Amino acid sequence: MRRICVDMDEVMADTLSEHLRRYNQEFDESLTPEDLTGKGLWEMTPLDRQQQLRAFLDAEDFFEDLPLMPGAQEVLKGLSERFEIFIATQAMSVPNSLGPKYRWLQRHFPFIPPTNYVFCGNKSILRADYLIDDLPRNLQRFEGHGVLYTAPHNKNVTGFTRVDDWQQVARFFATERD
Amino acid sequence: MRRICVDMDEVMADTLSEHLRRYNQEFDESLTPEDLTGKGLWEMTPLDRQQQLRAFLDAEDFFEDLPLMPGAQEVLKGLSERFEIFIATQAMSVPNSLGPKYRWLQRHFPFIPPTNYVFCGNKSILRADYLIDDLPRNLQRFEGHGVLYTAPHNKNVTGFTRVDDWQQVARFFATERD
Repeated sequence: MRRICVDMDEVMADTLSEHLRRYNQEFDESLTPEDLTGKGLWEMTPLDRQQQLRAFLDAEDFFEDLPLMPGAQEVLKGLSERFEIFIATQAMSVPNSLGPKYRWLQRHFPFIPPTNYVFCGNKSILRADYLIDDLPRNLQRFEGHGVLYTAPHNKNVTGFTRVDDWQQVARFFATERD
Repeated sequence: MRRICVDMDEVMADTLSEHLRRYNQEFDESLTPEDLTGKGLWEMTPLDRQQQLRAFLDAEDFFEDLPLMPGAQEVLKGLSERFEIFIATQAMSVPNSLGPKYRWLQRHFPFIPPTNYVFCGNKSILRADYLIDDLPRNLQRFEGHGVLYTAPHNKNVTGFTRVDDWQQVARFFATERD
């Protein structure tokens, strides 16, 4: 059985929506995902607000209740019958997220055993056939086949297999051998 | 630079001593590591005490203050100049250990960046040249060169490169190419 690693933030979980919601509420702004085309929220944020931007992530409840990306559950359930699914998430830069991420995965993806969770930093450590991730630098370091999951910040990036949503993930793997 | 993954429990941290200490205190016993030659503490523990044995691990403070294996800091510091060092620990079966393990590593091994921590379950996910681990099943699943770190439970296991302590780890890698 071939192995797929799946990133959490911006791929399984809609982390950006929650970050924007807190940002807009705190600073009385109305930024949308479209405003972030080609750049990250960090680059758009004035220096004097960056500390607060980081504090949102450190809050105990941030990663606990993130909304799901539409279709992630159904498509991963289907793929788990043909492929070995591992979750690979960068958690080490926000250590407060470790517990909440674990519980979120258990709640929303009970068919993926915790033995297949990988909380890491540098994704070059992953031994797998595929990695679905929104960050080009993670895919560059990965030695298997990288699949770029579209997010506002990566819209202008080229050179990777790209999927815009979970329906496209399903279509891509439908023709890959398992 | 070649890459070494290092297991935490029973390799960097003397987890067994702390587990035995709590066990002996709770049940008024005097088990020693020598009593566990060729078997795990779980196999030695009567059924009606297994729930408590597990509860020791779930306690918030268990993984916070584990004693260091002698020489682990000095030898890993030296190896980090020739090799890329990643820490790979099975943390997913005891989710309460995630935060304590992170803090323990930061406190005792500040020269290893958190981006090189990997909290995982199944160690077949690791892409590395070496894995130092006390559990034969982790080494069997690993695709690189497995190095068995001696612990009471694995004393009778054969078929792996074996090291008894950190001085032997240093000697082994002294002749490996980096």
